[in-house]
Amino acid sequence: MAGKEAKGADGGAKGGSNKGKKKEVKKETGLGLTNKKDENFGEWYSEEFFDAEIKKMKIKNCYFPLFVSPGVLEKEKDHVEGFAPEVAWVTKSGKSDLEVPIAIRPTSETAMYPYYSKWIRGHRDLPLRLNQWCNVVRWEFSNPTPFIRSREFLWQEGHTAFATKEEADAEVLDILELYRRIYEEFLAVPVIKGKKSELEKFAGGLYTTTVEAFIPNTGRGIQGATSHCLGQNFAKMFEINFENEKGEKAMVWQNSWAYTTRTIGVMIMVHGDDKGLVLPPKVAATQVIVIPVPYKDADTQGILDACAATVKTLSESGIRAEADFRDNYSPGWKYSHWEMKGIPLRIEIGPKDLANKQVRVVRRDNSAKSDIPMDSLVEKVREVLDEIQQSLFSVAKQKKETCIKVVKTWEEFLEALSQKKLILAPWCDEEEVEKSVKERTKGEMGAVKTLCSPFDQPELPEGTLCFASGKPAKKWSYWGRSY
Amino acid sequence: MAGKEAKGADGGAKGGSNKGKKKEVKKETGLGLTNKKDENFGEWYSEEFFDAEIKKMKIKNCYFPLFVSPGVLEKEKDHVEGFAPEVAWVTKSGKSDLEVPIAIRPTSETAMYPYYSKWIRGHRDLPLRLNQWCNVVRWEFSNPTPFIRSREFLWQEGHTAFATKEEADAEVLDILELYRRIYEEFLAVPVIKGKKSELEKFAGGLYTTTVEAFIPNTGRGIQGATSHCLGQNFAKMFEINFENEKGEKAMVWQNSWAYTTRTIGVMIMVHGDDKGLVLPPKVAATQVIVIPVPYKDADTQGILDACAATVKTLSESGIRAEADFRDNYSPGWKYSHWEMKGIPLRIEIGPKDLANKQVRVVRRDNSAKSDIPMDSLVEKVREVLDEIQQSLFSVAKQKKETCIKVVKTWEEFLEALSQKKLILAPWCDEEEVEKSVKERTKGEMGAVKTLCSPFDQPELPEGTLCFASGKPAKKWSYWGRSY
Repeated sequence: MAGKEAKGADGGAKGGSNKGKKKEVKKETGLGLTNKKDENFGEWYSEEFFDAEIKKMKIKNCYFPLFVSPGVLEKEKDHVEGFAPEVAWVTKSGKSDLEVPIAIRPTSETAMYPYYSKWIRGHRDLPLRLNQWCNVVRWEFSNPTPFIRSREFLWQEGHTAFATKEEADAEVLDILELYRRIYEEFLAVPVIKGKKSELEKFAGGLYTTTVEAFIPNTGRGIQGATSHCLGQNFAKMFEINFENEKGEKAMVWQNSWAYTTRTIGVMIMVHGDDKGLVLPPKVAATQVIVIPVPYKDADTQGILDACAATVKTLSESGIRAEADFRDNYSPGWKYSHWEMKGIPLRIEIGPKDLANKQVRVVRRDNSAKSDIPMDSLVEKVREVLDEIQQSLFSVAKQKKETCIKVVKTWEEFLEALSQKKLILAPWCDEEEVEKSVKERTKGEMGAVKTLCSPFDQPELPEGTLCFASGKPAKKWSYWGRSY
Repeated sequence: MAGKEAKGADGGAKGGSNKGKKKEVKKETGLGLTNKKDENFGEWYSEEFFDAEIKKMKIKNCYFPLFVSPGVLEKEKDHVEGFAPEVAWVTKSGKSDLEVPIAIRPTSETAMYPYYSKWIRGHRDLPLRLNQWCNVVRWEFSNPTPFIRSREFLWQEGHTAFATKEEADAEVLDILELYRRIYEEFLAVPVIKGKKSELEKFAGGLYTTTVEAFIPNTGRGIQGATSHCLGQNFAKMFEINFENEKGEKAMVWQNSWAYTTRTIGVMIMVHGDDKGLVLPPKVAATQVIVIPVPYKDADTQGILDACAATVKTLSESGIRAEADFRDNYSPGWKYSHWEMKGIPLRIEIGPKDLANKQVRVVRRDNSAKSDIPMDSLVEKVREVLDEIQQSLFSVAKQKKETCIKVVKTWEEFLEALSQKKLILAPWCDEEEVEKSVKERTKGEMGAVKTLCSPFDQPELPEGTLCFASGKPAKKWSYWGRSY
């Protein structure tokens, strides 16, 4: 596994050993989330969707402790190698030293699986499917970036055990599809579904599937969320056995999968512009901001009343609307303020609007203005919000697709890289070749690695060669620098 | 403030200095929650109720970091004195020491209020009402007790700021009423609303209101949840000022309020019996467990099908039902198993039931059995679940009221104490007298303190004297040992 890049607050790829990587960076003390999450993100809307969906799948919520004892943390060797350098340790309470330091969970495999071993006896105890919504801590060496790479982050982590590999395989993809829907349907961010390389898979697991996003401005990929099949490796270490239908002793097949508050960071990077945030309506805590535009000698009270009535009407229809009645700021100041906060739609009500029984609506995403008659307010606002949601997704998809560059040679690869492209290349699928690509591209910008091998594979004509090694290519794979 | 008893995972009373209390207890390293929460508690049902209610009050959810820097933690003197002895410190990441150790939040006043100071400028920015659902850590010296006093616990903490004391006062009571409803309507636990004494109030606050529960078996009170008016003390320390309507500089009035997973512990202690848990239907993850009772030569498949159909019918009506189809356990074993887990209602289906088109239902709370025709299944099950919910509450209320003992003298007080009563006594309301009562009753069982002065005050005839000091009594107050 591949070291720091694959870990961090990484939407689920929870590990990787640090083999061969030594980076001397001065330790600094920083807070987990140095910037507080804006209250607009206090409601993590995709959580509601995801939680309802996994309940339909009979996955139950649970909660395990924040603290993990060194004994269990160190039980799975590859796994602990992947996490050890970034585990935060509590060594003191008050002014006293603890007899034995205790770790803060970087992920919960080792905290949960000793219980799985106790709870699972017979095949009737399977599948065991649990999920928890919690915080985890990974003490990054590099500077934390809010939402993208923070020392504390919030996530859900699912941990499931099955009698057969087939069931585990199927769940991996079911969950991955939910992650795709979170990105595409809620956050309006296009993603690519695929499989991680051996070098990039989860430490200690069998294989890792991923939804990968891409940030055109910086030309970097970003792992959106991952769904891992752990195989029977943890089952072996934690002795998670059961008696199967034939009365024989068998080992369970396990999955783990996670998505994090990193989703918020990806959304911000994909849609944000020079004026600030741009939030997709489905996940915006406030979808509509109503701003009174009083004029001298105009009926100010009438305007304020119309604003309040507008918020009331929208709220009663389930649209998340608020008014900004502050009298110490000008309408223009408020426009900028709410644009910066990314509110999808602004409604302005001035004397002319009042006279014409209409409101002025202004879209955050493209600044388009239109007038809506007050008597079709809800219907029209809903229409515009839907348009914004769709439009954000199709614009982002268009941008991403423009960035995809198919390359076949090392020279084309380097050129595409310098152009910040999302590179799709035929590959021999050999671990040593990926290592060599990383080695040859490392530098200030960071090394290039595989992002994923897409499930949706273009045709690979016989005789196609690997762009990096010149050996026969086995698959198409996306390559790039990443967050 | 009163030392350890008032703190811990204590439903909201988040502090108290440790003045005059030195207890030498050997430090031990234990996990935050040494026992995992049973998956039945993974859904903390009262959370859904409370979250919806505070949203109606326009309180917004947010999230602040787990880690707090020493600088802000130590800003409010009384407050830090209350918490310092039990703060857990992270001092290492991987194998390296941090330059500056960092604290894990025991509560978030000091993490949040520096931001309140930045965000609040004018009266239009008020009220500011935020809430977060999160984990906190308080490193207890004594042995942790699952749910009641654990080193990590989950809670919501609300932090609000108002322009006037009147608004703050009103919110304190609105929130307290929600806490009462959580206990009485969801957990079927009767509580007493009241005010904490000066000695028992929140460290650094103005006054503390509480809902107090009582455990008849042990004769101990338990603080259920607290809603504090902080006054302007934190506003002063964190410089949370605003320009009021007259253009003058003013300080905000603040509240904080919290309820924790301790609610689960209180519910367990109040309703549990010798067979195990007894869960009120409203908060039981599984409300109905369906158990097939096959006999030799009977139509086993028919019974299994009827069980599956029963679960399906109930589930489709929104009743949380499951079947136990495990074939390696007997029906009798399963009865005990699900009784231990506290499932409110058991449905048994055997050959006779199948023949009579009925199911046998057995209540967990009082073992009452009855037969329900399959064609009125949903309606009847719903009726029985409602009866169980009501009955649990009225039985608990009855028990609690039987335990209340009105005392007027020190002798009566000691006698009631030895009888594990919930003591209601006239009190002079003097801090020194409460300290003296604690001093005179301390011992292996723990000192007696005021639980609360109930809002619902019995008549206090003129000339009534304090049970402890003999001075004129000013109010009635509940007294007892507590968790």
